Amino acid sequence: MKLNEIDTPAVLIDTDRAEANLQKFQTYADNHSLTVRPHIKTHKLPRFAKRAIELGAIGITCQKLGEAEVMADAGLTDIFVPYNIIGKAKLERLIKLNERITISVTADNETAIRGYSEAFAGRDKPLTVLVECDTGMGRCGVQTPQEALLLAKLIHKSEGLIFAGFMTYPKTGAVEANEAFLAEAEKLAIAAGLDPRIVSNGGSPDMWRAHEVKSATEHRPGTYIYMDRFQVAKGAGTWDDCALTVLATVVSRPTENRAVVDAGSKVLSSDTFGMDGFGKIVEYPDAIISSLSEEHGTIDVTSSKEKPKVGDRIRIIPNHACVVSNLFDSVILISGDTVVEIAPVAARGRVD
Amino acid sequence: MKLNEIDTPAVLIDTDRAEANLQKFQTYADNHSLTVRPHIKTHKLPRFAKRAIELGAIGITCQKLGEAEVMADAGLTDIFVPYNIIGKAKLERLIKLNERITISVTADNETAIRGYSEAFAGRDKPLTVLVECDTGMGRCGVQTPQEALLLAKLIHKSEGLIFAGFMTYPKTGAVEANEAFLAEAEKLAIAAGLDPRIVSNGGSPDMWRAHEVKSATEHRPGTYIYMDRFQVAKGAGTWDDCALTVLATVVSRPTENRAVVDAGSKVLSSDTFGMDGFGKIVEYPDAIISSLSEEHGTIDVTSSKEKPKVGDRIRIIPNHACVVSNLFDSVILISGDTVVEIAPVAARGRVD
Repeated sequence: MKLNEIDTPAVLIDTDRAEANLQKFQTYADNHSLTVRPHIKTHKLPRFAKRAIELGAIGITCQKLGEAEVMADAGLTDIFVPYNIIGKAKLERLIKLNERITISVTADNETAIRGYSEAFAGRDKPLTVLVECDTGMGRCGVQTPQEALLLAKLIHKSEGLIFAGFMTYPKTGAVEANEAFLAEAEKLAIAAGLDPRIVSNGGSPDMWRAHEVKSATEHRPGTYIYMDRFQVAKGAGTWDDCALTVLATVVSRPTENRAVVDAGSKVLSSDTFGMDGFGKIVEYPDAIISSLSEEHGTIDVTSSKEKPKVGDRIRIIPNHACVVSNLFDSVILISGDTVVEIAPVAARGRVD
Repeated sequence: MKLNEIDTPAVLIDTDRAEANLQKFQTYADNHSLTVRPHIKTHKLPRFAKRAIELGAIGITCQKLGEAEVMADAGLTDIFVPYNIIGKAKLERLIKLNERITISVTADNETAIRGYSEAFAGRDKPLTVLVECDTGMGRCGVQTPQEALLLAKLIHKSEGLIFAGFMTYPKTGAVEANEAFLAEAEKLAIAAGLDPRIVSNGGSPDMWRAHEVKSATEHRPGTYIYMDRFQVAKGAGTWDDCALTVLATVVSRPTENRAVVDAGSKVLSSDTFGMDGFGKIVEYPDAIISSLSEEHGTIDVTSSKEKPKVGDRIRIIPNHACVVSNLFDSVILISGDTVVEIAPVAARGRVD
């Protein structure tokens, strides 16, 4: 099947680019003695999780238990869920996952740790827990290395739990502050007789500087496999590295300088990451996707010399690839203009 | 089953409020001799489409053929798809739909009309086509009543097609300009010997002013069934009318004034419609959902006297209800604190 037989809107994955992106970061990490634990949130496809493992990744990262369950069912055996798992229903699912694969989680508060301990005390296999650190991102995580140490000690002494180290999702660009926090937490833990054997750093925007975070033992890149407009803006890759594009059709040309395509926020999402517009059009690089409704993408083609006509098909590099994967039941795997396979997005919509 | 047995994140639909919202607008429309053709994009559930029909709606609106196919399969028999349907694959699907139910579509350009005519010429049942007018929204639609007339004439003389009137999705607040455009288009069409029997207006923000658009014969409200933060901001409803809430759990309290919940952009979407924050928290009305990652919602509780603790459950009224429906495989129908049913979102993800 050829690409021109695919109806729109559709998500295309250039498998050659995805493979090259996986290989490139694995090689970088190998050169810096850093282990790789890719985040599956970007692709949500077991095949790419497995391929990363074949290339040398130590395991994978999932953000929610639902994603981990899908990946465990598909045969993945070492999964890190860097999240506070709260509540009886989820702890029961965590117990089941821990019985069949190697799983680890995080905590950034005492309530989470007490919950883990109550669930895992007396079980044959303890739960591996890392302390989440907020090294600048302003999301979850303890605020100081001293707080990190307190939670590390609490995990260490809690029945049913094993303290394994520290984890962060860092603020983009704040490499030095990230390293300073993690190094101090590691030092305090070792001085207290603990063993922080894993220090897990993450993110694609600064991934080529991952080796500068010398305390980190592993890195968790996600978007690196597909890249997107934001990663290109941050210098993590180039337009030619972008493996995910949205195929769309021009359905309306109401004015000289306006085009409307059949891909709106239900396809591209409203994520902007502070950038202007909602994606880059491969064939019309000077055009601006100026607004989205759910089923319409409105494009300003004022600066485009050639203008699209109704019925033309275009390819869009989205601002944020991961959220696009989550909006489609299946993606079209391609090599050049040939359709390799239509793949169900196995872990789509797993929000709990 | 009680609400406290539902794990998070989950989408709750207050069925009593949804019913009241459907009834209230139908009564208003009846009082103004306006027919109602609700847009199913907000709920994507056949049950609510059918209930609107029972209450007096003339038919339903779907934005894409995929939604119309789901609704036709569920027994809906009169569906308007206000979209330019472009390309062979979609026209074949449109032919099939037209054979089994009453369907109508729009066009705002000659390419679309020629495609319709080529597909429907010589068939037993012609295709009903309305002309889409841009009365201020700046999306699809012809730019002037004169252009609308030209396309109306083209449809009228095209084999296999029936011209039925005009359609718009108006700019919020531009009620007078909307009416002026539609009235002129209608006048021109009648003067040319055409029969614009349907003039279809839409949108929830200005729905209580629908009667001021005197040319319109029908109105297509969508969000009115659930309401949301944007509709409340526009005065279309009150907080107490909001039928869709997201149930979430506080998973982290990293600082005095920061809380993080397990509902991020994969649950609430990044839609802001120009508003600050990503939703209203029912229990903490002074809190601000300041940023979203895919699986984290970060909340500023500086202005909240009482602060939530880890494990607390909260309910969020999202900025935009429709996109939240599209992110969940199923929603929890409730009445008070009782779970009535867990309903699959039948038309979720139908983007083509």
